[in-house]
Amino acid sequence: MRSFDTIIYNATLVTVNAAFDIIPRGMIGIINGKIEEISAMPDGFDIPDGIEAIDAAGGIVMPGLVNTHTHMPMTLFRGLADDLPLDVWLNQYIFPAEGKWITPENVRLGTALACAEMLLSGTTTVCGGYFYEDAVAEIVSQAGIRGVLGQGVIDFPAPGVPDAGDNISAAMAFTQKWYGLLPTIQPSIFCHSPYTCSQKTLKAAKAAARSQGVLFQIHAAETVLEQTLIEGSGNMSPVQYLDHIGILDEQTLLVHSVWVDDKDVEIIANSGAAVSHNPESNMKLASGIAPVLKLLSSGIAVGLGTDGCASNNDLDMFQEMDTAAKLHKAQTLDPTVMDVRSVLKMATIGAARAIGLDRKIGSLEKGKQADLLIIDTHQPHLVPLYNPVSQIVYSARGSDVRDVMVAGRMLVRNRALTSLDQDDILNKVKVLSRKIAALKRHGRVL
Amino acid sequence: MRSFDTIIYNATLVTVNAAFDIIPRGMIGIINGKIEEISAMPDGFDIPDGIEAIDAAGGIVMPGLVNTHTHMPMTLFRGLADDLPLDVWLNQYIFPAEGKWITPENVRLGTALACAEMLLSGTTTVCGGYFYEDAVAEIVSQAGIRGVLGQGVIDFPAPGVPDAGDNISAAMAFTQKWYGLLPTIQPSIFCHSPYTCSQKTLKAAKAAARSQGVLFQIHAAETVLEQTLIEGSGNMSPVQYLDHIGILDEQTLLVHSVWVDDKDVEIIANSGAAVSHNPESNMKLASGIAPVLKLLSSGIAVGLGTDGCASNNDLDMFQEMDTAAKLHKAQTLDPTVMDVRSVLKMATIGAARAIGLDRKIGSLEKGKQADLLIIDTHQPHLVPLYNPVSQIVYSARGSDVRDVMVAGRMLVRNRALTSLDQDDILNKVKVLSRKIAALKRHGRVL
Repeated sequence: MRSFDTIIYNATLVTVNAAFDIIPRGMIGIINGKIEEISAMPDGFDIPDGIEAIDAAGGIVMPGLVNTHTHMPMTLFRGLADDLPLDVWLNQYIFPAEGKWITPENVRLGTALACAEMLLSGTTTVCGGYFYEDAVAEIVSQAGIRGVLGQGVIDFPAPGVPDAGDNISAAMAFTQKWYGLLPTIQPSIFCHSPYTCSQKTLKAAKAAARSQGVLFQIHAAETVLEQTLIEGSGNMSPVQYLDHIGILDEQTLLVHSVWVDDKDVEIIANSGAAVSHNPESNMKLASGIAPVLKLLSSGIAVGLGTDGCASNNDLDMFQEMDTAAKLHKAQTLDPTVMDVRSVLKMATIGAARAIGLDRKIGSLEKGKQADLLIIDTHQPHLVPLYNPVSQIVYSARGSDVRDVMVAGRMLVRNRALTSLDQDDILNKVKVLSRKIAALKRHGRVL
Repeated sequence: MRSFDTIIYNATLVTVNAAFDIIPRGMIGIINGKIEEISAMPDGFDIPDGIEAIDAAGGIVMPGLVNTHTHMPMTLFRGLADDLPLDVWLNQYIFPAEGKWITPENVRLGTALACAEMLLSGTTTVCGGYFYEDAVAEIVSQAGIRGVLGQGVIDFPAPGVPDAGDNISAAMAFTQKWYGLLPTIQPSIFCHSPYTCSQKTLKAAKAAARSQGVLFQIHAAETVLEQTLIEGSGNMSPVQYLDHIGILDEQTLLVHSVWVDDKDVEIIANSGAAVSHNPESNMKLASGIAPVLKLLSSGIAVGLGTDGCASNNDLDMFQEMDTAAKLHKAQTLDPTVMDVRSVLKMATIGAARAIGLDRKIGSLEKGKQADLLIIDTHQPHLVPLYNPVSQIVYSARGSDVRDVMVAGRMLVRNRALTSLDQDDILNKVKVLSRKIAALKRHGRVL
């Protein structure tokens, strides 16, 4: 036995490597945060002395989940307003709530809550964006979860950027500060959408992202109405418009892409841009159903995402996998589409590819980062276990995650957070949310 | 304070009564298995001596969930075969597996596993059917969960009924034995479908159910092809056919009802029959999306159900609520439909109405049975808590259920089963499933 820092043993390993190898009684050796060995347990396996040895107790070990789209601080607005027309939900609840309550301090609190929820449910990498992203990055780095963090750009006064004319320079300052600072944090620029950012803003933001080699994220083709809201796009679809003005390339992540036709799919595929698929948010907001089968068959990198808590209302990637697997079957009336392996890939290696991290994460392979989770399968809803991939997609819940590791560091151990103070976060959120609820009850602007 | 057997206090009570009252800091007093008082906690509330007093710790107390459709023993086939065309799935996997493995002993084991899973995730009443239903009823009565249990009727040789000619008499023997035997068990007759039962069988089974005053359950209008499979139905839809031969009345539960047109909806509404809506199973098997909004607006009693584990693959009613709330929004592109209250009703009082038990269960009201659950809300994915109904439908998971009571009896206490030996069940299921998996691997008939 080589001298690892940590070994995990007695596990069914679902590697999600290219061959989709499943190792029934396997072990993983970790050195310096990386997977150094992944194999069947040797005969006569002994627990070595002097290193951390984690008994997976016959459970499943799989790559950590990669959530390609959320807005972490919006956990503060979970359940604040539901089942409303989109314009009422946004203009009467979400935008006013953000205007009033989004401060750096509250962003830190909402981000801590999001990190707690995500880590406990097996998410090891989160991609998304918001305002005061510097405060987000601060908490994400404390939590230890891997993050691709986009400073928001929008052509309205926004939290932390009261003068929209400063939106690009604020984004550049954020990416410059965080670029290369920590191995687990990649800064990014997040333009809100083609209908809330002018052509000039979109081009300048993309130029800034290109100049620094960071991911450019944008909500695109989310609703059927979006096309009519984009100034100066003429008859072009949102995707055609973004392509026309030079936004699409290998470092662009299009979030949602619900209303894309065959021509749009071809444009995305040719550009090398990726897509974040958020089925639960698209369902809850009644945006529609993204043509994910076409996106995948065109070779586009598609990653799953939960979207923010106000439109889901959780950050549980296990439920998102279950929904993704089922939704497209119902729509196409074909039970063979979106099989469990395709779905699991979309939440791991496919998601990693969509955000440019597939060389580092997304599968359990020698040389990759030790970003992984252990599922406790000794529970009524997880037996029998004929097929661990089916169990992961269709039967497991976020709460079945026992341990979580990012870059070799245990961030969840026996269902408890090691890097965050859960009770402190919950208690502070309760205090804040009572104030938000009181204002809502009194009929005042949020 | 009156002398209750049990009180539950320090809870947000989501009553699901006609006024949909929510009592922020409430208490429930229970005598002899019934709710005797439900109210706000009085000022200066003291924990009384000498009775069981359960502190809900500020969590949510709600009516127990009512699963209107499943096949409990099929937990044994969870994840055995997924993502296959319906005929391959049924004929090459499920039917052969049932033929080989469904014995009274295995039915008892699979039922125990189902009861464990359901109780732990807050289901207090289960309706469904299978073969060897006597063995099912035996375990259900031990588990203490409330059951509407249908002996299966089909025109093929079936487990326990090798001669299909005996199917009605077997069903009658079952209902006679269990009718009135225990307050928590209602026997029922479950005809498999209009395409696997002849007109003669359907009529005889319905006559038997009528003569004993028990619920008649039947899968109906599940797939688009079903109409072509019904012999002698001519141009009639499955619902028209069942109406034509006199099957539909107030004690008929139509399971699925995916392929029903406006005329069918009118027929169902006029007959007084109810519908079990199983969105996750309908999605996974690519059956389609039931027109639930129309069913509800026509006044039909609609209850949620999970279906069996082979087509879901779990029995978690919380996930089923979440999916039901979102699916119909995506289909109609209207975010206001299937609001959280409508969905919660469909899993509680509406479901109770669909199976004829709404006078006894389905809401927290004085005089009703004490069938309820406590949700532990002090968790990252359940804060903030602006709206407990939104939290129940969109954010909670089965694993958030801390305690479960049926007829005043605590069946889950601090997430542990009191009436079943969980480890014993899990270990026995593991042993059996290894045998099933071994045969599957060797390519032999299941």
